[in-house]
Amino acid sequence: MGKVYWIWYPADFELYHAMKQNFSRVERGMGWPAFWKSEGFRNRVAFRRTYRLEKETSFAVYASPGTVGFVLAGEKKYPFGRRIICGPGEVRISVHAGCIEAFPSVYIEGERICSDKEWMAEDYDRPPVPVGYSRYFTEKEQNPSVWEYSEKTYCPVHVEDTGAGVLYEFETELTTALELAWNGAREEQGDRDLSSLRVYCGESREEALDTECCYYSWQPDPQTGRCPRCAVRFAYIPGIRPEEIVVKAIHQYVDIPVRASFSCDDDLISRIWKVAEHTFMLCSGVFFIDGIKRDKWIWSGDAYQSLFVNRYLTADVEIERRTLLALRGNENMTTHINTIIDYTLYWILGVWAHYESCGDLEFIRQIWSKMTSLMEFCKDQTDSHGFFTGREGDWVYIDWADLDKEGPLCAEQMLYLRCLDVMAQMSSLCGYAEAERRYREQYESLRIQVDRFFWDEEKHAYIDSFISGRRYVTRHANIFAVLFGIADETRKREIAEYVLLNEEVPQITTPYFKFYELDALCRMGYLKEVLDVIREYWGGMLQRGAVTFWEEYDPDVPQEQQYDMYGDRFGKSLCHAWGASPVYLLARYFVGLEITDAAKGEYKLDPHLEFFRELDCVLPAGACQLHIMWDGKTLHTETI
Amino acid sequence: MGKVYWIWYPADFELYHAMKQNFSRVERGMGWPAFWKSEGFRNRVAFRRTYRLEKETSFAVYASPGTVGFVLAGEKKYPFGRRIICGPGEVRISVHAGCIEAFPSVYIEGERICSDKEWMAEDYDRPPVPVGYSRYFTEKEQNPSVWEYSEKTYCPVHVEDTGAGVLYEFETELTTALELAWNGAREEQGDRDLSSLRVYCGESREEALDTECCYYSWQPDPQTGRCPRCAVRFAYIPGIRPEEIVVKAIHQYVDIPVRASFSCDDDLISRIWKVAEHTFMLCSGVFFIDGIKRDKWIWSGDAYQSLFVNRYLTADVEIERRTLLALRGNENMTTHINTIIDYTLYWILGVWAHYESCGDLEFIRQIWSKMTSLMEFCKDQTDSHGFFTGREGDWVYIDWADLDKEGPLCAEQMLYLRCLDVMAQMSSLCGYAEAERRYREQYESLRIQVDRFFWDEEKHAYIDSFISGRRYVTRHANIFAVLFGIADETRKREIAEYVLLNEEVPQITTPYFKFYELDALCRMGYLKEVLDVIREYWGGMLQRGAVTFWEEYDPDVPQEQQYDMYGDRFGKSLCHAWGASPVYLLARYFVGLEITDAAKGEYKLDPHLEFFRELDCVLPAGACQLHIMWDGKTLHTETI
Repeated sequence: MGKVYWIWYPADFELYHAMKQNFSRVERGMGWPAFWKSEGFRNRVAFRRTYRLEKETSFAVYASPGTVGFVLAGEKKYPFGRRIICGPGEVRISVHAGCIEAFPSVYIEGERICSDKEWMAEDYDRPPVPVGYSRYFTEKEQNPSVWEYSEKTYCPVHVEDTGAGVLYEFETELTTALELAWNGAREEQGDRDLSSLRVYCGESREEALDTECCYYSWQPDPQTGRCPRCAVRFAYIPGIRPEEIVVKAIHQYVDIPVRASFSCDDDLISRIWKVAEHTFMLCSGVFFIDGIKRDKWIWSGDAYQSLFVNRYLTADVEIERRTLLALRGNENMTTHINTIIDYTLYWILGVWAHYESCGDLEFIRQIWSKMTSLMEFCKDQTDSHGFFTGREGDWVYIDWADLDKEGPLCAEQMLYLRCLDVMAQMSSLCGYAEAERRYREQYESLRIQVDRFFWDEEKHAYIDSFISGRRYVTRHANIFAVLFGIADETRKREIAEYVLLNEEVPQITTPYFKFYELDALCRMGYLKEVLDVIREYWGGMLQRGAVTFWEEYDPDVPQEQQYDMYGDRFGKSLCHAWGASPVYLLARYFVGLEITDAAKGEYKLDPHLEFFRELDCVLPAGACQLHIMWDGKTLHTETI
Repeated sequence: MGKVYWIWYPADFELYHAMKQNFSRVERGMGWPAFWKSEGFRNRVAFRRTYRLEKETSFAVYASPGTVGFVLAGEKKYPFGRRIICGPGEVRISVHAGCIEAFPSVYIEGERICSDKEWMAEDYDRPPVPVGYSRYFTEKEQNPSVWEYSEKTYCPVHVEDTGAGVLYEFETELTTALELAWNGAREEQGDRDLSSLRVYCGESREEALDTECCYYSWQPDPQTGRCPRCAVRFAYIPGIRPEEIVVKAIHQYVDIPVRASFSCDDDLISRIWKVAEHTFMLCSGVFFIDGIKRDKWIWSGDAYQSLFVNRYLTADVEIERRTLLALRGNENMTTHINTIIDYTLYWILGVWAHYESCGDLEFIRQIWSKMTSLMEFCKDQTDSHGFFTGREGDWVYIDWADLDKEGPLCAEQMLYLRCLDVMAQMSSLCGYAEAERRYREQYESLRIQVDRFFWDEEKHAYIDSFISGRRYVTRHANIFAVLFGIADETRKREIAEYVLLNEEVPQITTPYFKFYELDALCRMGYLKEVLDVIREYWGGMLQRGAVTFWEEYDPDVPQEQQYDMYGDRFGKSLCHAWGASPVYLLARYFVGLEITDAAKGEYKLDPHLEFFRELDCVLPAGACQLHIMWDGKTLHTETI
């Protein structure tokens, strides 16, 4: 008998909670459900298992609220919740479950017969598959459609009487349910109801005080004094005096242990790590989301980058699985992930990044058909050269940048090549020789075409488009060519000289793509340059008082416009997952830890100690952590 | 401005309520959700429309409970429920809506801008389509995910003290919420709670009194005294005296006006019509269901027969549309309807029957892609001869009968031929010439193969299987060959002689297939024989005290086993839709009304007055009703 879980049809849990996540965006009282195809959960499933019982045993099946159905043990039917006695001998158990409002799930309690991972699930559409489960749902009393957040209470570190009201500041930004109470006995307040108050929240002081333009404002629940969960660093309540009200922030989070720490002699770099870690953990809850105030959506491109940061912070397998399952949706594949063709491709790369981090071959096998159907979906959208173009009207994104998108875009081909490459590798890992051959073949033939049509000998670079005739060079495709090993060593040097270090090629302006650029620069050994960027860009945000890293930062923008984005006064997210990339860059290239075979727990450590006088760092490496200490003279490493 | 409705993505309403319907089966305290793939509703949709406004106007958008989203009018966003002013000029309105628990739906109220049928809906997967709506949901205060039944209160016609308790009998079988109250002031009863009572329900007296084996028993809600809705003719409450409790039956039904009546000099036939009508109306609620006690599921084969009865009773367009939409589910088609390959084919025939009844070309256009994808799904399951075989493991049903199912089954080919035939006709109606050509071509080539492989010259009949070599003849395929015009006149005569009227060919034993046999016999002019069957079979049930027609009736079974079926003491459904077929047979062949072109309101009347001395009958014919009177001398008809 294994550990007992709530069980469901695999991915239903993720699709349901992803919908909750993607529908949770609120902007000044308006809901903004994510603008892509919602991928529903199943409503009718059966769980089955055959036991060979040596003696009589008993069990009971419990269903999540709203789930109807029955248990078939042998030939006999039983209702949920009833103690069932069966055995000895072979007995086939089927649990039939239907639910409309949420995904059906059951919990089976018994000495011998219980809901461990070994059950199979059916949805009356496809062949049986192993059930889904989560380590967070292991108790009969739980309801898998309600996520139970861990909570930690914070009191304000600063309370300011503005004259018109009171501004509360917390020590950092949190995802919190604010809780208000009258200061002193309830009676003294007469009939004043807590819900007569309104709380204005802000990631910045300016936002909280702007009762017109701040994103979130709430009337507390009159009974509990609680407001809904949202991003808060500052809270402003007009029309009260400081002594009247007690405000607490109940931080609600998913408890994923951080298995890393970083400190070095350079205090700025140590602080950048700390803030990056805090930023990342706030954006890593049930799923990897983009940011905690705005969107709060699961974006494939953002999640892909989070996978790299996560490798060096929590190395948590489940959040990665949850996010990948949520993004991919159901069979068949009919639309691009988040409506963006590159985001579809990042999903495949994300599965590979997950494998590289965790060696999670079980997961690859589980979602193999979803991987291959995605690849088929993309292959159906290739042109006569084999270039991946999407369908008419599909969003070809890559970056907010001036790319020449006429005809097939080079950067998309680079991503597609990488997908074919990793699909071949994963086929090989799973022992699917025929699939490996096919992906490898498509890879090789596409690579020749990319070389032929996109590499420009005169420009010493890949051009965006060969259709337009403009031979426009941007950094994007060239960065990918370096990262994905598409350019050979000669070309890499050309790309470095003629593109990456060439100031005439337009700069990357988004921190999103900056991640790939810095990664590529690190790969090519430009560590000093990258460290300078970290100090300048992330250090710059700290100088501006950041307690979490922002969606975007431009030092040239005046202070009063720093929170502005997308034409919205407070549109910029001040706690954005991709802002945490220094964790990855520092761990991977400066501390120099590379996980070479996660399945076997193998890694390579190649620290660049020239950048540190002192270093004390812990990083996850498989089931263990690696403790790296450098005192300027000797390097000491230990596994803990 | 058209009539204002709640609007949703088309078919979402039907798929949601179908799930409620198919999950409503309860058996002795156990839920039994239907054992096929549940077809979910969408969770994220957008409704769009562009108005050209001559002057400023205002409107507000209301969303169903649980729906989040916003309204975009021009460039500006507004929350739900807020009055929005726009115009003059062109303004594009988008309503963004997401809901997890139910399908998102909105109601738009305004003088010029309102939710009429002209809006388009998007699901981020397929191109925009016209919205769905229902005439039952036209008021802002409604919630489209809650069906509002009409109610009628019935008091018991007989109250019997059994000594151990009290048995209540109602005048007929109903779908009802029983309501209990203490007789006299509440106070007198001291602390006796209504929920201390238990009510046992029955379609028969025997079932209600059998507290072990009856299907439904309830504890009334302590506040309201109400029990859940279920099939009731008898109710038994143990441990009380008749004067203690007042019991009422709140019959809950969908108000679909019956537009027909039938009476003739033969009282038995008149009574059979009445009981058939009552049976049918009980089984026709939100959808056509099989029966009101057991299953309560939407079965495609059962619904197909209901379409023929409905043509002559209510001719209600909406229940037919709802049922067809519910059965078909979503794109793409991945499993057979109700898991049965013939039930998939009946769906196409059902659309055609609906068109024949209502001339509803708008609906055919709306679901055209679902029709063609179903046909593609079937075509993918044909063998080298073009015979439709299903996939391995698919359920080849046709009837509970001893059919020779080795290899392709002839009856399935007959259904498939008919599907190709009506697809060609519907293609033509819609002006899809290329599709018409393709279906016609496939029809002709399959017909040749059916002739070649299944017609047996020596047996003068179609055989079940040509693979087995057994040359086994059953009635089923031969009946279809007559009904679907596949056999020519010569063969029809051979089939009549060598199959239908040949006692050596095993009899049809289910009333389900009896429908097709009687239909075929009528087509061939054997009206007297059919009328005898009606008198004997349906009259036999009346003799046994039936108030609704049963799922099955065998006069040779002793009384005490009449309620037995599927090895269950009360397993037989005593109110079953297919029991209502006399309505169709009498109206279509005896009164002789054939709707020849519903779109144009054309019909043909060819009454067989030789069977009646008197007849007074009203039948729906398009928008009107036809009143047919015969006094034994003159026939008088009028349109009302």
